[in-house]
Amino acid sequence: MKVGPSRSAAVLRYGEGRTLVERPDEIAAEEPLEIRIEGQSVAVVMRTPGDDRELAAGFLLSENLIRAATDIFDITQCGRSNEDHVVNVTLRNPASFDPGKLTRNVFSSSSCGVCSKATIEAVRQSFPPIASDCQISVETLLRLPAALRKKQETFNQTGGLHACALFDLDGNLQAIREDVGRHNALDKLIGYAVLENRLPLRDQVLLLSGRVSFEMMQKSLAAGIAIVVAISAPTSLAVAFAGESNQTLVGFLRGQTMNVYAGRQRIVP
Amino acid sequence: MKVGPSRSAAVLRYGEGRTLVERPDEIAAEEPLEIRIEGQSVAVVMRTPGDDRELAAGFLLSENLIRAATDIFDITQCGRSNEDHVVNVTLRNPASFDPGKLTRNVFSSSSCGVCSKATIEAVRQSFPPIASDCQISVETLLRLPAALRKKQETFNQTGGLHACALFDLDGNLQAIREDVGRHNALDKLIGYAVLENRLPLRDQVLLLSGRVSFEMMQKSLAAGIAIVVAISAPTSLAVAFAGESNQTLVGFLRGQTMNVYAGRQRIVP
Repeated sequence: MKVGPSRSAAVLRYGEGRTLVERPDEIAAEEPLEIRIEGQSVAVVMRTPGDDRELAAGFLLSENLIRAATDIFDITQCGRSNEDHVVNVTLRNPASFDPGKLTRNVFSSSSCGVCSKATIEAVRQSFPPIASDCQISVETLLRLPAALRKKQETFNQTGGLHACALFDLDGNLQAIREDVGRHNALDKLIGYAVLENRLPLRDQVLLLSGRVSFEMMQKSLAAGIAIVVAISAPTSLAVAFAGESNQTLVGFLRGQTMNVYAGRQRIVP
Repeated sequence: MKVGPSRSAAVLRYGEGRTLVERPDEIAAEEPLEIRIEGQSVAVVMRTPGDDRELAAGFLLSENLIRAATDIFDITQCGRSNEDHVVNVTLRNPASFDPGKLTRNVFSSSSCGVCSKATIEAVRQSFPPIASDCQISVETLLRLPAALRKKQETFNQTGGLHACALFDLDGNLQAIREDVGRHNALDKLIGYAVLENRLPLRDQVLLLSGRVSFEMMQKSLAAGIAIVVAISAPTSLAVAFAGESNQTLVGFLRGQTMNVYAGRQRIVP
């Protein structure tokens, strides 16, 4: 498989001339990645190739299978042809991993995160609530979307990728990741922070290009993120979760406007 | 739990007055639904409440567990309080359902569809390619987004829901479903068609409010849909899948423009 975030294709474009004209186009790449732990297959995610080791690390953190980079012994991606779509994670303490338990309870995917958990009770992981009392100004928040867009290279080419980014409290971009799946993009970003030993992400703001679901809030809590900001809408469960976990949640951050749904004490007018 | 597609909440709005003002708002509802087959829990999906029986039927069709309404004996939603988030499907032929096999191979979720399948080979179901040679005109296609938007009631309230809709080849709206998850919205729409005995959906056009992934194409193929049209971008695997399954795939249907990615013989200029 070709590695890279987009694929070239011949597309029939209907546009200004009111006729169908063939032209080359770039399409967001989507390919399966199999995540293995200690050689055991635990999930197949449909992701945009790239940052696969980070994706695996973020997935394991979100699933509460690791808490830090030190829990990981190694992450390897098979080098043989046609096998770069498999990532294997070995753990510092392999005995802590119980594949039987995983299959039934946390056997899941970063493209949705909550599926395949056999009962509703199993959906919610047990991450501690946020203790940080950091703050960010409205003015700084309003500048973030433009900073994200400037860096969204593949989206600008394909129009088909979700992005998420970390900023410091002064609005300086720290890291950005893109993927066809918004859960994958967040797993990659969090996985980067795991592998760089930057957890918990205190005093960091997470900006999401799309909507905010329960699962996105749970992933951000796993990484210790206090402030989550999105260009688009949150769901009802995301708002409730933010309240319970003492996270700040801002949505519809567009132009000169925004909605604060939870944790308003961290927003300075 | 309250039933309905949105929830009221008090939100701090930062807007024209350059101050944070508290005001009531409607937020897209997201709540877990547990799908059971013959009393066995097979998946938990994070969905917008409503059309839950249809969601379950569409999920089972997409997972290749049923082929028509006649394969279903009954779909019941527990009536007791706090239990309307569980749907149980009983099958006409319960012996055909092997829960052990499901857990390991198709134990999945409509919110992502492909996860938790233990190997990459298991991602692809074996639905036959489309045989229909139906056609639709460019003029009709260009009218569909406005027709969808007019009916997207909850999105207009919350800005947080995906929609998908079926149209006939003359552009007449047949059915529409909304959900916080785009896979759920499609499962609901397909499940409606299953329960109404309208499969296969020959001579129908599927319009999606968002992007098109591999899994969305596979779900539409399960329902026999020849023409899939989206407001936003497709992924590389969606384009490849459409080619293999002889489906027509149109993306970026906006204003007076569109891109045809596959099955161009069904588009009449």
